[in-house]
Amino acid sequence: MEGLEQVLRSIKPTAASEKQERRFVDQVLEKLRRQVKGAKVALAGSFAKGTFLEGDKDVDVFVLFKHNVEKEALEGIVKGAVENAFPGAFYQIAYAQHPYVRVFLQGRKIDVVPAYEASHGRHFELKSAVDRSQLHTEYILEKMGQRQKDEVRLLKKFLKSNHLYGAEIRVQGFSGYLCELLILKYGTFSKAMKNISEWKERTFLAVEGEAKPGAMEKFETPLVVLDPVDADRNVSAVVSSANYFALIALARAFLSSADKAGFFSKKALSAAALKKLVGKRNAYCIVFPAPKIVDDILWGQVRKFYSTLSCAMKKEGFEILGCSMDRCNGSVCIAFELLNSELPENKVIYGPPLRYRADCEKFAAHYTNGQLLILEGRLAALAKRKVRTPEQFLGKIRALPAPSHLSSAKYAKLYKGAAAIKNCMQVLQQYFSVQSR
Amino acid sequence: MEGLEQVLRSIKPTAASEKQERRFVDQVLEKLRRQVKGAKVALAGSFAKGTFLEGDKDVDVFVLFKHNVEKEALEGIVKGAVENAFPGAFYQIAYAQHPYVRVFLQGRKIDVVPAYEASHGRHFELKSAVDRSQLHTEYILEKMGQRQKDEVRLLKKFLKSNHLYGAEIRVQGFSGYLCELLILKYGTFSKAMKNISEWKERTFLAVEGEAKPGAMEKFETPLVVLDPVDADRNVSAVVSSANYFALIALARAFLSSADKAGFFSKKALSAAALKKLVGKRNAYCIVFPAPKIVDDILWGQVRKFYSTLSCAMKKEGFEILGCSMDRCNGSVCIAFELLNSELPENKVIYGPPLRYRADCEKFAAHYTNGQLLILEGRLAALAKRKVRTPEQFLGKIRALPAPSHLSSAKYAKLYKGAAAIKNCMQVLQQYFSVQSR
Repeated sequence: MEGLEQVLRSIKPTAASEKQERRFVDQVLEKLRRQVKGAKVALAGSFAKGTFLEGDKDVDVFVLFKHNVEKEALEGIVKGAVENAFPGAFYQIAYAQHPYVRVFLQGRKIDVVPAYEASHGRHFELKSAVDRSQLHTEYILEKMGQRQKDEVRLLKKFLKSNHLYGAEIRVQGFSGYLCELLILKYGTFSKAMKNISEWKERTFLAVEGEAKPGAMEKFETPLVVLDPVDADRNVSAVVSSANYFALIALARAFLSSADKAGFFSKKALSAAALKKLVGKRNAYCIVFPAPKIVDDILWGQVRKFYSTLSCAMKKEGFEILGCSMDRCNGSVCIAFELLNSELPENKVIYGPPLRYRADCEKFAAHYTNGQLLILEGRLAALAKRKVRTPEQFLGKIRALPAPSHLSSAKYAKLYKGAAAIKNCMQVLQQYFSVQSR
Repeated sequence: MEGLEQVLRSIKPTAASEKQERRFVDQVLEKLRRQVKGAKVALAGSFAKGTFLEGDKDVDVFVLFKHNVEKEALEGIVKGAVENAFPGAFYQIAYAQHPYVRVFLQGRKIDVVPAYEASHGRHFELKSAVDRSQLHTEYILEKMGQRQKDEVRLLKKFLKSNHLYGAEIRVQGFSGYLCELLILKYGTFSKAMKNISEWKERTFLAVEGEAKPGAMEKFETPLVVLDPVDADRNVSAVVSSANYFALIALARAFLSSADKAGFFSKKALSAAALKKLVGKRNAYCIVFPAPKIVDDILWGQVRKFYSTLSCAMKKEGFEILGCSMDRCNGSVCIAFELLNSELPENKVIYGPPLRYRADCEKFAAHYTNGQLLILEGRLAALAKRKVRTPEQFLGKIRALPAPSHLSSAKYAKLYKGAAAIKNCMQVLQQYFSVQSR
């Protein structure tokens, strides 16, 4: 497809930069190997598979233990190994399904993940959920040629530029492995776009051959991509419905656009376009100080908090159209869009069903000002809304029960319009990239 | 119960007035009998059963034909009989399930209804739906003592004063026969109030003994009262859900009030109370000239028109809490209440599901101003509402498709507040009597 070769040249690491990265990674592996004698140390992720982009600074290393090592011992061994291998380096203990060590070295973020050595095959025993990653690396290395790796790079960059890349809980988007499987399935980036543009309400994919009857139906997500190394697993389980449909619309826009390269640029949404959208639509940003915890936990808790927040706002009568979240200037920022910035004057307060006579009398005693009526067999009261705008709701947002690390939510600020762009440009770009067409 | 005897004295016809009414009715029957030799002429309704109120001016007369008379001939025979019996009197041809003649004589409205003579018993053949009325009259005359007839009078007057009396389509309330059955079931007016105040979401009643298993379940209305002369029939089929719950609430208010007699006065809702309610709540009146047709047809068509109207308003976003309808100053008046008098600024226009790609492109071509987004797999557009108030919606109301006799709806006026009270006092009283507590 015209223009894509040029895009590829800008995102594919040069031979020199690839050599430099390899050398760095090899040193990391070597230092770790010296510390953990009984276990294998293996590169994983996009570096191992050769699908990384120029400028990627995230390295995944697996420390693979024999099955006779106790699960509880893994964290301590890996932590000790990192401390000894990289004395003085800053590191964190992070948690996905199990603890791992995140260490920062020469501008790179290296995740050192303990796991059990896995043997290939349909019925291998997974002692730890991340053990599967080794099999993913082996599978991609076995099945994927060099040219297809470049197609993966295009797809990854395309998704990144449009805020749809990444399986982490903050994004709920498309993982690197999912990109690789989509390219294996469809052949090239262009063919993937064409196929994705035709996706319906739900899409079921098996990378090789057909799925067994019933294999797809047990999953409930809009996109189901069976894992070729474990057919019980849906690789796209975390992809949100909003992101699924956003990708379909994006693929269509890409196919019909003359400026293909524009879809790979860092700011898919220009500042002018953003300003116009913020002026027309009721986007708000909730901002509060970010606690110093690893991202996985942070965004897990922010999602939980947003769930509480959005339920409370819906209950109040606000109609929320969508949300995005990210850091802005070191703070947590949740962008959300409301259909209306002001709710109507009155609301209905539903009381008990008429059959509960004593409860009805208690309810009626609160609403003595000509407000009572019966709606569908329930006593109800008409009342003026005390809260009609998100600004008036901010006090309630600050008082919402927050997850353990988000006590700073009680200092939440609310931005709209120009102030929102000033303070939360990036997350608004992300929101409107995904949620406006 | 204290005060009820006094109420009864004011609503029960005196011996003198009853004698006068009887004489009038006997003359009517005699004149009709001379015209229809082969058929029986029988008094029906509350005059026949002795449960009429002082001032009642509605007389029901049945002309009972043998089963060998053709159905198609009935209307002509009865019409001819009325013309000959009451030369020069104004009459109309009216329709319930079948045509009948409504004639106006000396300030009374007399319905002369052709029907087939019915024989008592579970399996008699009903050639006409109204034939059942003869059996109702016989049943009440057989089962009900004089004192209970006075209790029926109290219940009827209570319902009339609170706008819940009458099975006609305009009211969807409680018929005279239903009042009689409720008194037979519960014994007295006071006991009926106590029982009604305990009614739940649905109430199933068989006047004598228990209903056969399953006899009640086939009906879907909140109140089911089996007809003792035809156990397949629900006497309260027309009672609306709103009226059912209004009666329960009213019975409770009656039982706990010190001013029992007040519930029987003509204006259960004072002018001051009405003014206060209209000031607080968003009541509107749609008014248009009444066509000169009989009430049964008129209100059937007005209900149909209101159904179209309320659907259109709901689709626009208005939340309707209830309605009443009646004549006001010779015009048709529909009163309805809105939760809010102004809708919010924006609305969502739902487009096609994303899977219909060509339709989506057409839809998107209409909304090019940063308005598009995807909601639950459908393309959608955000747009400013053009109609935010009922006043702005009046043009659309006038343009709604109206039933055959309601072409005058295109001249509909809309009143609110003081103007509504001035033009539509009676129907607003009716509305708030039923719909406010």
